[in-house]
Amino acid sequence: MLGEMIRQNRLKRPLVHCITNYVSANDCANLLLGCGASAIMADDPDEAAEVTAMCDGLVLNMGTPNPRKLKALLIAGREANLLGHPAVLDPVGVGSSNLRKAAARLLLKQVRFAAIRGNATEIATLVRGTAAHRGVDADGPDAATENNARQLARETGAVVIVTGDTDIVTDGSTIHRVHNGHPMMRTVTGAGCQLSALIGAYITANPDHPLEAALAAVCAMGLCGEIAHRRLAPPDGNASYRNYILDAIYHLTPEALEEGAHYETDC
Amino acid sequence: MLGEMIRQNRLKRPLVHCITNYVSANDCANLLLGCGASAIMADDPDEAAEVTAMCDGLVLNMGTPNPRKLKALLIAGREANLLGHPAVLDPVGVGSSNLRKAAARLLLKQVRFAAIRGNATEIATLVRGTAAHRGVDADGPDAATENNARQLARETGAVVIVTGDTDIVTDGSTIHRVHNGHPMMRTVTGAGCQLSALIGAYITANPDHPLEAALAAVCAMGLCGEIAHRRLAPPDGNASYRNYILDAIYHLTPEALEEGAHYETDC
Amino acid sequence: MLGEMIRQNRLKRPLVHCITNYVSANDCANLLLGCGASAIMADDPDEAAEVTAMCDGLVLNMGTPNPRKLKALLIAGREANLLGHPAVLDPVGVGSSNLRKAAARLLLKQVRFAAIRGNATEIATLVRGTAAHRGVDADGPDAATENNARQLARETGAVVIVTGDTDIVTDGSTIHRVHNGHPMMRTVTGAGCQLSALIGAYITANPDHPLEAALAAVCAMGLCGEIAHRRLAPPDGNASYRNYILDAIYHLTPEALEEGAHYETDC
Repeated sequence: MLGEMIRQNRLKRPLVHCITNYVSANDCANLLLGCGASAIMADDPDEAAEVTAMCDGLVLNMGTPNPRKLKALLIAGREANLLGHPAVLDPVGVGSSNLRKAAARLLLKQVRFAAIRGNATEIATLVRGTAAHRGVDADGPDAATENNARQLARETGAVVIVTGDTDIVTDGSTIHRVHNGHPMMRTVTGAGCQLSALIGAYITANPDHPLEAALAAVCAMGLCGEIAHRRLAPPDGNASYRNYILDAIYHLTPEALEEGAHYETDC
Repeated sequence: MLGEMIRQNRLKRPLVHCITNYVSANDCANLLLGCGASAIMADDPDEAAEVTAMCDGLVLNMGTPNPRKLKALLIAGREANLLGHPAVLDPVGVGSSNLRKAAARLLLKQVRFAAIRGNATEIATLVRGTAAHRGVDADGPDAATENNARQLARETGAVVIVTGDTDIVTDGSTIHRVHNGHPMMRTVTGAGCQLSALIGAYITANPDHPLEAALAAVCAMGLCGEIAHRRLAPPDGNASYRNYILDAIYHLTPEALEEGAHYETDC
Repeated sequence: MLGEMIRQNRLKRPLVHCITNYVSANDCANLLLGCGASAIMADDPDEAAEVTAMCDGLVLNMGTPNPRKLKALLIAGREANLLGHPAVLDPVGVGSSNLRKAAARLLLKQVRFAAIRGNATEIATLVRGTAAHRGVDADGPDAATENNARQLARETGAVVIVTGDTDIVTDGSTIHRVHNGHPMMRTVTGAGCQLSALIGAYITANPDHPLEAALAAVCAMGLCGEIAHRRLAPPDGNASYRNYILDAIYHLTPEALEEGAHYETDC
């Protein structure tokens, strides 16, 4: 089933409008090309709706924000909803500033997302924003994170992905816990942004299976982190690792994903 | 003759003002350093003219545009014309929005370009903009593309470069068809932006030979794509390929270009 | 002693707010992760103070400026001063435009820097700005550069680092001349920006030893340039070199720095 998500992506070659930060933009574009999709990166409100309209899917990344870019996120998100294109939100560092918190609130109010991906803190910040602090850190960090993910998924209708030591993928009822990945991925800037872009590609290519598509992307990214780690020679550090992860995405087959995906499911 | 374009570039080490998109800015800067030139990247209207004036040549890339950056493109372009610096236009995704189309129209009206590089769709969009749709797709895709290239070259006085399976380089009368390159280059984001930067360097170093300089850059980029492709080991994907192309540009000699350039010419 | 600077950095894992240019942002972020620190990159005045406040240190890089980003530099710098966070200034291309010169003057007037790093021209421009041209190029280039560095250090209270064939690190009285590094580092875009980021990390982790921390960063960067250069295989060019330098930073140990640092000191 996960392999089919890749197969559809390579077949349909979706064009994804990415409004993203300038730190990881190049890596996200190369990841999308490597996985078989492609990207247009356009972040100005004066062209956001038009660019969204000529693409098949949308990824909204909140890194390196400014008021014009945040306005573009909203415009693009609403346009994607109008056209029925899947939209993915990556609330990068949403807890870092009131600018980002306010923008996230507006986005969640005005845009229907197919998926939202963040780390535990980012997802907790989104939940607090919509749920007035109830129960967020109540049951120990892991249970709290799963509760936040489920709650955000139920409130928004989005598949919620929380990345960490174990990654969580949930639509609010089913919950997948993914054990792929390698701790060294934390030394690669924008690994989360890249995953959000991959989720965007897979969901765009598989619009009727957002949960499976997100799960496939999370397993694929983690698996490629493992493959890339095995490739490291002694002098290789995080820069070579960055390249090897992208190289692994380029070569990843449906069969390799089926074989290497490592997750468990609760319903 | 093509080798002489590289020789002059390595000798003069031109400083090129690049107003470019943030997706490929790092790669363009490394390519310029690798080929023996160097870049200043400054995209604000408040300093565009001054930065242009302290450089030897100019590359205007329309990717990730916003109104301030587009204003800077115009200011820098007019300043380059005043000073007699060669200016290169890369109309990235010009058909994607009215913002880009309007900016391109203004640029073509107010700035005299030494060279314009785009893919077939981008060049067709520029021609439609100046020529009210006549004959653009009349004679099948390839002939249409060549006609567009010639027409844009005649109307603007620029050397026009259209990249695709076969690359076209024309001044409106002579037409070169370049067969260098490798299909995998399509999986490297910003390969076109990089070529535009290289054209900018070679034309700046060879201001009296814009057609030959552009041809040399197109052959060089394609040849480096071939050299880099031969270097790929089994686990290498598009990220390693990106690095290997830049590495090949770094090592490219006039002799290797003379030997490896693969093109035919019609007058 | 230099090794201790690395040790503290790996122990404390400082979070550094970087307002930087989009050309080298990705490399700076990966360098910071590789050395054991991490970065938030946020360049808008509407969130600059908040982001500074949640970090431990600050790096202000003047590349690809625009009026909003320059305003953010000021706001972040003043906030860092209020909170007692070390702030590092990289006056990229400060001589290129009046926009940058005016911004640098304001920054030097309103913000107290722990360190300022530039090349000889950039540092000379800062000195001229504060010192009305006296003596800048009086005693031959090398002596002039050392005089500029000392003068700027005395006037600002910052450790001043001037990178070139020999790097200079001074607090206005003690002067270190660093002989690490390799000429090929000039072919890697943003190598200076990366060094400024590394200085930011080391000074943040060693706030009571800014001179030693800056010296450690300069030696570390140069040493990694040497290590990376020894790793080059024949087809490797500046793109691979860029990766190898970052890889070397990732692996650099206190012991290797102590052993490989190559500098002399005048008091």
